[in-house]
Amino acid sequence: MTVSPTKPINRSKIRPEIQTLQSDLVQWRRGFHQQPELAFREKLTSEFVIRQLQAWGIPHQTAIAETGVVAIIEGGTPGKVLAIRADMDALPVQEENNVPYRSQHDGIMHACGHDGHTAIALGTAYYLWQHRQEITGTVKIIFQPAEEGPGGAKPMIEAGVLKNPDVDAIIGLHLWNNLPLGTIGVKDGALMAAVELFQCQIQGKGGHGAMPHQTIDAVVLSAQIVNALQTIVARNIDPTDAAVVTVGELKAGSAMNVIADNAYLSGTVRYFNPALEGAIKKRVEAIIAGICESHGGSYDLKYWRMYPPVINDSRITDLVRSVANTVVETPTGVVPECQTMGSEDMAFFLEEVPGCYFFLGAANTELGLNYPHHHPRFDFDETALGMGVEMFARCVEQFS
Amino acid sequence: MTVSPTKPINRSKIRPEIQTLQSDLVQWRRGFHQQPELAFREKLTSEFVIRQLQAWGIPHQTAIAETGVVAIIEGGTPGKVLAIRADMDALPVQEENNVPYRSQHDGIMHACGHDGHTAIALGTAYYLWQHRQEITGTVKIIFQPAEEGPGGAKPMIEAGVLKNPDVDAIIGLHLWNNLPLGTIGVKDGALMAAVELFQCQIQGKGGHGAMPHQTIDAVVLSAQIVNALQTIVARNIDPTDAAVVTVGELKAGSAMNVIADNAYLSGTVRYFNPALEGAIKKRVEAIIAGICESHGGSYDLKYWRMYPPVINDSRITDLVRSVANTVVETPTGVVPECQTMGSEDMAFFLEEVPGCYFFLGAANTELGLNYPHHHPRFDFDETALGMGVEMFARCVEQFS
Amino acid sequence: MTVSPTKPINRSKIRPEIQTLQSDLVQWRRGFHQQPELAFREKLTSEFVIRQLQAWGIPHQTAIAETGVVAIIEGGTPGKVLAIRADMDALPVQEENNVPYRSQHDGIMHACGHDGHTAIALGTAYYLWQHRQEITGTVKIIFQPAEEGPGGAKPMIEAGVLKNPDVDAIIGLHLWNNLPLGTIGVKDGALMAAVELFQCQIQGKGGHGAMPHQTIDAVVLSAQIVNALQTIVARNIDPTDAAVVTVGELKAGSAMNVIADNAYLSGTVRYFNPALEGAIKKRVEAIIAGICESHGGSYDLKYWRMYPPVINDSRITDLVRSVANTVVETPTGVVPECQTMGSEDMAFFLEEVPGCYFFLGAANTELGLNYPHHHPRFDFDETALGMGVEMFARCVEQFS
Amino acid sequence: MTVSPTKPINRSKIRPEIQTLQSDLVQWRRGFHQQPELAFREKLTSEFVIRQLQAWGIPHQTAIAETGVVAIIEGGTPGKVLAIRADMDALPVQEENNVPYRSQHDGIMHACGHDGHTAIALGTAYYLWQHRQEITGTVKIIFQPAEEGPGGAKPMIEAGVLKNPDVDAIIGLHLWNNLPLGTIGVKDGALMAAVELFQCQIQGKGGHGAMPHQTIDAVVLSAQIVNALQTIVARNIDPTDAAVVTVGELKAGSAMNVIADNAYLSGTVRYFNPALEGAIKKRVEAIIAGICESHGGSYDLKYWRMYPPVINDSRITDLVRSVANTVVETPTGVVPECQTMGSEDMAFFLEEVPGCYFFLGAANTELGLNYPHHHPRFDFDETALGMGVEMFARCVEQFS
Repeated sequence: MTVSPTKPINRSKIRPEIQTLQSDLVQWRRGFHQQPELAFREKLTSEFVIRQLQAWGIPHQTAIAETGVVAIIEGGTPGKVLAIRADMDALPVQEENNVPYRSQHDGIMHACGHDGHTAIALGTAYYLWQHRQEITGTVKIIFQPAEEGPGGAKPMIEAGVLKNPDVDAIIGLHLWNNLPLGTIGVKDGALMAAVELFQCQIQGKGGHGAMPHQTIDAVVLSAQIVNALQTIVARNIDPTDAAVVTVGELKAGSAMNVIADNAYLSGTVRYFNPALEGAIKKRVEAIIAGICESHGGSYDLKYWRMYPPVINDSRITDLVRSVANTVVETPTGVVPECQTMGSEDMAFFLEEVPGCYFFLGAANTELGLNYPHHHPRFDFDETALGMGVEMFARCVEQFS
Repeated sequence: MTVSPTKPINRSKIRPEIQTLQSDLVQWRRGFHQQPELAFREKLTSEFVIRQLQAWGIPHQTAIAETGVVAIIEGGTPGKVLAIRADMDALPVQEENNVPYRSQHDGIMHACGHDGHTAIALGTAYYLWQHRQEITGTVKIIFQPAEEGPGGAKPMIEAGVLKNPDVDAIIGLHLWNNLPLGTIGVKDGALMAAVELFQCQIQGKGGHGAMPHQTIDAVVLSAQIVNALQTIVARNIDPTDAAVVTVGELKAGSAMNVIADNAYLSGTVRYFNPALEGAIKKRVEAIIAGICESHGGSYDLKYWRMYPPVINDSRITDLVRSVANTVVETPTGVVPECQTMGSEDMAFFLEEVPGCYFFLGAANTELGLNYPHHHPRFDFDETALGMGVEMFARCVEQFS
Repeated sequence: MTVSPTKPINRSKIRPEIQTLQSDLVQWRRGFHQQPELAFREKLTSEFVIRQLQAWGIPHQTAIAETGVVAIIEGGTPGKVLAIRADMDALPVQEENNVPYRSQHDGIMHACGHDGHTAIALGTAYYLWQHRQEITGTVKIIFQPAEEGPGGAKPMIEAGVLKNPDVDAIIGLHLWNNLPLGTIGVKDGALMAAVELFQCQIQGKGGHGAMPHQTIDAVVLSAQIVNALQTIVARNIDPTDAAVVTVGELKAGSAMNVIADNAYLSGTVRYFNPALEGAIKKRVEAIIAGICESHGGSYDLKYWRMYPPVINDSRITDLVRSVANTVVETPTGVVPECQTMGSEDMAFFLEEVPGCYFFLGAANTELGLNYPHHHPRFDFDETALGMGVEMFARCVEQFS
Repeated sequence: MTVSPTKPINRSKIRPEIQTLQSDLVQWRRGFHQQPELAFREKLTSEFVIRQLQAWGIPHQTAIAETGVVAIIEGGTPGKVLAIRADMDALPVQEENNVPYRSQHDGIMHACGHDGHTAIALGTAYYLWQHRQEITGTVKIIFQPAEEGPGGAKPMIEAGVLKNPDVDAIIGLHLWNNLPLGTIGVKDGALMAAVELFQCQIQGKGGHGAMPHQTIDAVVLSAQIVNALQTIVARNIDPTDAAVVTVGELKAGSAMNVIADNAYLSGTVRYFNPALEGAIKKRVEAIIAGICESHGGSYDLKYWRMYPPVINDSRITDLVRSVANTVVETPTGVVPECQTMGSEDMAFFLEEVPGCYFFLGAANTELGLNYPHHHPRFDFDETALGMGVEMFARCVEQFS
């Protein structure tokens, strides 16, 4: 997806009460932006969230999976439980933006918009708390650590955030610079990819560059492995199943004149179809094993399943889509096929309960707010913050 | 080796008595040339040889390995036994020469000079028989079938031609269009390569061209095998050991739109160093096995050792070289490094007894007699026939 | 998609009048089945269709693109024009079914269900003609030749079947053994893949199997090309765009012992995204060119775009889906994601006018009617014929 | 070649006068060993050589190519000029031997025996000077720097060491742990290989590990290059020409999850046949260029010809062989086929004048003196030093 010039969003779609929250949302977000914190160390961020919840009197739990917080808002009428999820962590990136609110922590930056997610969730908590009497059911607002890895969703689930009261559905959003401000990407089924990682040490037998017959050439061995790995996506995966097998690193040898003793390969695997879990790993290992065996080499493969795919539930997605259609102008405002091979630990929540994760367009090309996520100059149009609160508020109203 | 313009050979090096044989040698050779016969069917050729030996009264054995003949000439003085070997078979080639003596058998041709070899051996038998009283020891002249394959040397050895009396050494020659008339190629050690052949059926799993994930693509599998086989010569063999691994055929699939169920590979392996016997086969199979396993395919490999390398004994080679130095002008007449990756079943004799196989230059560029062996227009300068008899005669004289 | 056990379809969903047509539908279909005809030779089939239309008095055009027929039914009320498309050709397959109506033409068989398509279209023509007064607008029923290739849709379009009166939308169906009877596969957007074909002659330089340095080995060259082609799908295509690059044939060499002079590769390319037209071809050629150049070889690539992708229009698809929901039981009866990398020349019609092609479940596992399309034992549950007429009739009623 | 148990050499082959030099040879060698010096910095070594020549009154030139020295001994009778060459430099290796004479320079070691070469040349100078009246012709003894690279032979030639008086032939030796003490390796023609080196930067286009289609994957590109480079030795070089193409290093990428922007390859090329100079480089570049082009990548190849092959002249080799046959017991003492893919800058001298480089067996397995050259525990049997002087002395006597 590419970012097209932003057309002005119809602000009247955002209810006045949420429009008045806008300056708070911006202030909170900029505060988080100035003090970015890495995975499981979101101390200041978490403390700020807690302070606000306390100030407003919203019941909440703290220190879940280190820094996680859950606000619980019981509606005036009993009913189902909807969770709203936001992530709080920043990235090990050195900010290159020259803005008043730039990061004050060297080498750490909110380069993916989680500062905005936290602000939106906080604003949503405030708004819903004011209107809790009108709500049917209960809303849990989850502030999680460590989305960028190693993942805060799973430990929060293990700590019971989806239980007591049991969550019936979950929603979440990502501020998205691949979409212009004023658009919302909603998609049923697979939205983001599962991600797996591997590292492999190939053991050959080194020797003098002029005596190949006395060696098992780890450069040749690993080159054949890289080639053969291409057949996984090209031949082994159903063409209608998106998949990626990338070898990111290949390092072998240390001299022009010496045959490499060993080689190091690392890479990532991506896919949407949950049925491919384990299947690609099996192919990766079969290829490495077969080629090593054919040359008398050996290998040590480490392979991790990081995040499962983000799979949206069709019923909840229908709800989010219809809400989105009221928040942005149709038909161009709601983008139906906004799939990406990127990944998200929101996936763990969606493995547990039905839900929908969606993309909230945040790019503004005219203002230069269109750098890609994770870029040292990433920033977004803060107008999207109020839209996020509006989306969550309407979803809560429609869900019960 | 390339053929350079022929310089006139000093005919005076050929003793007058052998010079007078020249017209018989030519007549015999042309007779054989007109009636070429394929492997183990050298009936007319063999009968002609036998008739001559009978006419001259030379003791001989017949019908060894189908059409093989051995003439036995005991010298006046007892001594060691020297064998002289010639091959009689022609090739399945359609002659394109327009000469009076062209092949009368459609699709069969003496395109490698074995007609000349037989004539030289017959002339040598005649000459030595006339001079048997002067000979110390015994000479066995072996006329063998099927050199071009499947090989007549081995069955003749099994039939006992090297026994009773036991052969002490063996010599043989090949008329050689890679050398000009008037030169002789003599080389110690490995002269010609071992040859092995293989055929391999690769079993994948076919399917619709649009559904690769339901298949094991035999085209991809066999392509990876071909690539990996290149590493045998490039990486596994001592660079100072000459070796070839050629995949001659690769056939897979029968439609643009259908993924191939299986593939057929065939090829040849060549090397000089006897220690490589078995070693290359092992690498070929390891590569095929490993790659098949990595893709879930299977294979059926047939692998034949055809001929071993032609390895000349250094002592007999010294003798042949010193004889050659008397027959052709030194220093340029005797070519020392005339190695070729071609093969010869003379190798089997040389595995049993020490000996020397040498190349008798036969090309005459000025006369257009310089087509390569096995070519439909192959022919050679018949002057070489007398030189062959002279070489054998002198070797016999020097050997005892 | 796999075929699950068939559950009985609720026949009451088929209106009684169409139920009474069922025995005619079966009789017509079996008639076509017994006299299968190859591309552009659908003479008997076409004549039968024409005879029926004449008998019923339905206006029609004939001999369009050889054997094509178009029936034109004007409704009682003027309105938009909807086309219904059926294909008539059989395949060069030898039938292995032992049924009373088996093919009487040796080596030709209706192995893909087009006999059924023609019967359904004929039944639809009859039914709509009876009810023409109730119809708003006009219905064109297109009987096309040669769907299996080289393609009858394009020449019929060129002959003007979509003009005069101009067609506003088109629908069509495929009896589908990948779905059980009683289900209908309907999908917005890309349903079936574009198909391209290529043939490539790789020119190396042949030679003796023992002299690789005098050659350009076409086996090695083509093996490297096959390997490199894997990177197109693995690396060059957006992972979320389904694509296939299959090398179906690889043929090089004719002897174990001779290095191949040239190699022949052929294959197919498939994709859904129309933007990939030309892009994959470009990659295929760049890879072949680069590798040939690196070895001093050359190539001759022939590359054909056969059929574009079948892209359903979302509005017409919504209509067809809602109709399907009335014909089969929801929710399991209408299958939403029934994409296949197979191809269809219906695609050409859909490039011209908006429309929807859908799959009509026809497998009946209990009756053994579940062989794959193009299989010598392919057959389907004829109950689907009436469902096809019902689908078309309701679409016509809803369209106007 | 492997080292077999040492059999005692017949010391009586070394003339008594040279036997009495043995303790000096050992002392000099150990002195050099303790103070090893790297290329072009052989200051102490050179000074010691010069001091000795001065002390003995032998005319000499100094400071040629930094540290080179040439002693000139005119014989009593005028005649031809024979050069004897020795190299003086050590290696950047940390010695692991625990001997009294171990290296006193950290990280520098005489791990290839050049200390012994210098001692032998010095002993030869001394001996020949004592017997200069008996010598016909002139002997130049060349002490050269930097054999291990970047090469001292070439600058010494450029400085004129082969001129005035003009050198007619040159000999040299290498103490050789691949042969046991008491053997001498002498070979006509190619003895050691030419060596070339290359470094290649492959430029692709990096990107997110999940978005291969936006990149040109440098890992995949370089893996294909490594595979294709295998075909140079396997297919492009005459099998009877030894050659090596080794990729020693392959480095690409820096993260599991990021597609590599570029790759770095380096390697070495070896061959004996001077005709291959340029030919292999051409193939390396053609392969890299073709594959880069096929993927849209680019490259920057640096390629250096380091040393040419060491080619012995047949006449001088005959002389050295016959001398060797008098110094060691025949037949096993003189090893005829002692070719190695290792390289030597003696090659530059042999490009200028006919000569012979030979291997002086120096391993003594029983004493543990059999580590390979360049190994931190390399050492040799010093008995070989006297044999070296004996060889040179006899060659001088026979040459004139």
